[in-house]
Amino acid sequence: MIIVMKQSATPEEVNHVVEKIKQLGLQPNVSKGVERTVIGVIGDEDKIRIQPLEVYPGVEKVMPVTKPFKLVSREFHPHDTVFEMSDGTKVGDKKIIVMAGPCSVESQKMLLEIGKEVKKAGATFLRGGAFKPRTSPYSFQGLGEEGLKMLRDTADQLKMQIVTEVMDTRTVELVAQYSDMLQIGARNMQNFDLLKECGMMKKPVLLKRGLSATVTELLLSAEYILSKGNFKVVLCERGIRTFETSTRNTVDINAIPVIKEQTHLPVILDPSHGTGYYQYVKPIAKAAIAAGADGLMIEVHNNPEEAVSDGPQSLLPKKFHILMKELKPVCHAVGREL
Amino acid sequence: MIIVMKQSATPEEVNHVVEKIKQLGLQPNVSKGVERTVIGVIGDEDKIRIQPLEVYPGVEKVMPVTKPFKLVSREFHPHDTVFEMSDGTKVGDKKIIVMAGPCSVESQKMLLEIGKEVKKAGATFLRGGAFKPRTSPYSFQGLGEEGLKMLRDTADQLKMQIVTEVMDTRTVELVAQYSDMLQIGARNMQNFDLLKECGMMKKPVLLKRGLSATVTELLLSAEYILSKGNFKVVLCERGIRTFETSTRNTVDINAIPVIKEQTHLPVILDPSHGTGYYQYVKPIAKAAIAAGADGLMIEVHNNPEEAVSDGPQSLLPKKFHILMKELKPVCHAVGREL
Amino acid sequence: MIIVMKQSATPEEVNHVVEKIKQLGLQPNVSKGVERTVIGVIGDEDKIRIQPLEVYPGVEKVMPVTKPFKLVSREFHPHDTVFEMSDGTKVGDKKIIVMAGPCSVESQKMLLEIGKEVKKAGATFLRGGAFKPRTSPYSFQGLGEEGLKMLRDTADQLKMQIVTEVMDTRTVELVAQYSDMLQIGARNMQNFDLLKECGMMKKPVLLKRGLSATVTELLLSAEYILSKGNFKVVLCERGIRTFETSTRNTVDINAIPVIKEQTHLPVILDPSHGTGYYQYVKPIAKAAIAAGADGLMIEVHNNPEEAVSDGPQSLLPKKFHILMKELKPVCHAVGREL
Amino acid sequence: MIIVMKQSATPEEVNHVVEKIKQLGLQPNVSKGVERTVIGVIGDEDKIRIQPLEVYPGVEKVMPVTKPFKLVSREFHPHDTVFEMSDGTKVGDKKIIVMAGPCSVESQKMLLEIGKEVKKAGATFLRGGAFKPRTSPYSFQGLGEEGLKMLRDTADQLKMQIVTEVMDTRTVELVAQYSDMLQIGARNMQNFDLLKECGMMKKPVLLKRGLSATVTELLLSAEYILSKGNFKVVLCERGIRTFETSTRNTVDINAIPVIKEQTHLPVILDPSHGTGYYQYVKPIAKAAIAAGADGLMIEVHNNPEEAVSDGPQSLLPKKFHILMKELKPVCHAVGREL
Repeated sequence: MIIVMKQSATPEEVNHVVEKIKQLGLQPNVSKGVERTVIGVIGDEDKIRIQPLEVYPGVEKVMPVTKPFKLVSREFHPHDTVFEMSDGTKVGDKKIIVMAGPCSVESQKMLLEIGKEVKKAGATFLRGGAFKPRTSPYSFQGLGEEGLKMLRDTADQLKMQIVTEVMDTRTVELVAQYSDMLQIGARNMQNFDLLKECGMMKKPVLLKRGLSATVTELLLSAEYILSKGNFKVVLCERGIRTFETSTRNTVDINAIPVIKEQTHLPVILDPSHGTGYYQYVKPIAKAAIAAGADGLMIEVHNNPEEAVSDGPQSLLPKKFHILMKELKPVCHAVGREL
Repeated sequence: MIIVMKQSATPEEVNHVVEKIKQLGLQPNVSKGVERTVIGVIGDEDKIRIQPLEVYPGVEKVMPVTKPFKLVSREFHPHDTVFEMSDGTKVGDKKIIVMAGPCSVESQKMLLEIGKEVKKAGATFLRGGAFKPRTSPYSFQGLGEEGLKMLRDTADQLKMQIVTEVMDTRTVELVAQYSDMLQIGARNMQNFDLLKECGMMKKPVLLKRGLSATVTELLLSAEYILSKGNFKVVLCERGIRTFETSTRNTVDINAIPVIKEQTHLPVILDPSHGTGYYQYVKPIAKAAIAAGADGLMIEVHNNPEEAVSDGPQSLLPKKFHILMKELKPVCHAVGREL
Repeated sequence: MIIVMKQSATPEEVNHVVEKIKQLGLQPNVSKGVERTVIGVIGDEDKIRIQPLEVYPGVEKVMPVTKPFKLVSREFHPHDTVFEMSDGTKVGDKKIIVMAGPCSVESQKMLLEIGKEVKKAGATFLRGGAFKPRTSPYSFQGLGEEGLKMLRDTADQLKMQIVTEVMDTRTVELVAQYSDMLQIGARNMQNFDLLKECGMMKKPVLLKRGLSATVTELLLSAEYILSKGNFKVVLCERGIRTFETSTRNTVDINAIPVIKEQTHLPVILDPSHGTGYYQYVKPIAKAAIAAGADGLMIEVHNNPEEAVSDGPQSLLPKKFHILMKELKPVCHAVGREL
Repeated sequence: MIIVMKQSATPEEVNHVVEKIKQLGLQPNVSKGVERTVIGVIGDEDKIRIQPLEVYPGVEKVMPVTKPFKLVSREFHPHDTVFEMSDGTKVGDKKIIVMAGPCSVESQKMLLEIGKEVKKAGATFLRGGAFKPRTSPYSFQGLGEEGLKMLRDTADQLKMQIVTEVMDTRTVELVAQYSDMLQIGARNMQNFDLLKECGMMKKPVLLKRGLSATVTELLLSAEYILSKGNFKVVLCERGIRTFETSTRNTVDINAIPVIKEQTHLPVILDPSHGTGYYQYVKPIAKAAIAAGADGLMIEVHNNPEEAVSDGPQSLLPKKFHILMKELKPVCHAVGREL
């Protein structure tokens, strides 16, 4: 922690800060410059991080030196995390994982049709929402437990893994009962009670980045999960909110190498939500792999015209097959498998 | 709803859309222009809003004509909503409401000290967090029910109303038991289960705008609450996330007149979170009233140096007194009272 | 300047940085912490600011301690700058300055009609564009020198001061010949050659904030002008670009107190461009004054239906009169005059 | 153009709009819906685009149907533009173009050293700034014409093409004399006089996207150049400004397929400015190619520690060689050559 004093700071004000630092069992390092005094803090930064030093008289600004997260950091765990799903599928390994399926679970029949197609094309996870976060209260809110059952039945038939969203602390156990991986959606990235609850489950968690969350905030939200004992966490970049309106969101492709540098956790990308239009899914999926992502989450629907949600960004199974075929050489070009 | 067809759209594609519109019991109005065909939809737009028409072959874009919210809209309810708290305090009336207190409830003693001061200066609501949403799992998470009790005791002693945050669907009833108004924080603005749960309570709700939520999304979240039967909702602008880093957030002052135009619900502003620094609270509080806000929410702490959260943006009681004194002429200048 | 070394930095890497600092005639202050080494630099920070220290081996990050601007800073010049226009109008003084007029100069007749009205209502500056920055090459680009002449004639008749935009280094002298104040538009805030050229003129300069410029960047652009010898600079907040689409831009009201704190230069606000809709101009104009702005720039048109640019955000003269009348008590409420 | 009337619009107000449309020689199509009246305009939308219809009494909103640009649009010119440089290098063709070199031209010696390396690695354009746009007036501003001469000499020796920035309308001819391609920087994307001036040159133009420019605005700025007769324009995505601070800018990778869909012009990506840190250049360069970019612009410096600008984002020649080697399979994977 570095504390920069104002030009006008008095010796008493400097002393006041120095005393506080000592009280906390830390060591102050006072450096009187030409223009102003700067105080460095030696010792465990966490002790002083929560002090509102900015309000001390004479203080101009406070600059943290270390990262605020621990368990998720590369410094804590230098090697890439690779974990196994119940069927042996490895997440974070050389082989790219692909999660595909409809935005919402609508019926057993459609789920099975779509599931067969995406499985054939190479997807290992079946995605689909039973609890849906919708901007309007008048939109379809999901089939709930009935939808979870359809997911489980379909996945068992097709030997796929399920990833599905959980929105409410009260249904975490229910979702965990049916699903192989718990998805925390972008709008709930800072629903801290939900994070804690998922941290206490045995199931892996897919944590999506919030619409206006920084990478640091995403990692702190992951830290909530790890700090409760659940280390099987996958991060997901799904586009951030910017001024650009030609796409639904702006995929922050930079976030892929930044996340890879700062944490050992695997990271995937969702080009369907990231762009909002099916015609952009293919190029952005390829870009994600080229940039180092460990997987993809893609919306596929066999009849987008009748989809109850997110039709415009869903691929037809035929287009998903083509995407998977074209992805393969890109994976190989960057030393990955599909 | 207006459906713009591509230049290259075939008559069959136009027909396909027309048929769909008719199937929904709506009336299509086809207008063949020089460059392209445009189809207007006559009838209840909600029926067609959820159709993913963008994926129909030949469709270039779909433009909604009406607003997606109903109960919160000015068209539905042209007059300003004014509602009463249990002690007769009117929210949304000529008199500006002021909510003040510490960021977090830390102890009964500090709460009482701060409460006395803000009450004396003219605040009618005591604010203070018992459940705290914190970016890091290692930050102070609030005193929970114990904090709620301290709030209730203090407010009863001082004859103030309480507003405090609820974060989890499982604690909505508990918080409603102690508090006079339920606060839904910025990070939970799209926690739809929480919105629904608060919509079923009898207590008024303070709904804060999300960091990257549009005004339309804020109103749709309010619609969730009203649609469950609770019409006592106050909206709160508290700064949005932008590229600017000299303040913690960017107060969207434009949102005040926009919200006033689009909805009948009262709206207040939180200059403490909106700026992040105590020295900017006063000018922005004045600006809020000048722009038409119905109230203010302000963080006050008697010892910001020791505050467990948000110290840098908290006013000392002395400064809060000065603020209230200087606010009075601004209120009068725009026809309001304080 | 503070240089934070990586945890893995070797003693040689630390030495390499230390040597560089000494070479520049500065004094390094090495502080070995528990987790990592931090090096403070004592002496004139400007010498080292331009060094790309981030690329030195072992360096994690570099944190500047002092502000990068000098002449515009409050530290350099603690008192508010107040300067006089050729007719004695004071800019930055207790009395609020108001600049009003059409977006574009369209004809002598309309300019005179609008000018008379805004003068009567209390405006001292006549605004109007002769050179227009337009997003599309097919939009009206302004009347050029002919428009400047109309502005001069009208202003002389009405005894008003002119403020008009200059877009091209080649026309700075021409514009300076006709105008009393040179306006640099938002899109040219970082047109550095234009800044330098205006810095060499004797006329005061109105510098508008860029759509995505930080306050620091705005001040650095002002520094370009001052560093060429022209100290008569007024800054103008006119809305920044964010994700919100219900208004044309988002007025950053926080910027007013931030600018007042960091610089001695006067600052005004443009609610017409800041909101994009005439119905929001009045509340935002009031908010600007309440927050501490020294003036306003407002678009007024006598026939917005036929305006060649920015019709939707222009006030009718009648509405401008009402605005000015309602502004007066707000000015008084914050100790200003109108 | 679609004009949506307010619910409260009177028949007179509808008529007023209808009359205006007829006056412009266009055909109105009035559709009375259940809730409100909508008026479609049939005919050349450009005639009515510039009318401020939003200010007509009774009008709620105006929605354009067609794109505001012509010459740059795919509808106008369906096939990809491919053009030749003076040495036969094709821009926009199957073969990816790579522009590399230092941020600023510092000396003939360094330019030649870097030029040799990047040429050997496969770059065909030598980049380097002689006129530098710098946020601070105290930063290095470039060597000017002397720098242009060094660029020309070096490029002639190495048989490379030059791309270099032009910032001022007064130096467009000078820069065009020495350079093979004129670069318009992000900060000048809406310097409309500069766009027009470059539109009148015979040299190809590289147009960089502004920090907060939408894709539509970028295309409109390109339209300025084409409308003056210069059709040899390359667009460049270089990162936009968002709230994320872990990288200098946020590369909008979505923009690549969006631009490819909307225009026939070639598009390249600049991962150096787009990320701001050398360690992220490689993954983002690969992502750009995978997403469909036609080329890359990359900063290379032989001694980043001493670079006068942008050291942290410059690659060492050795790392540039590795990047080019690793890029090759990615190019092949998406059907391109390097």
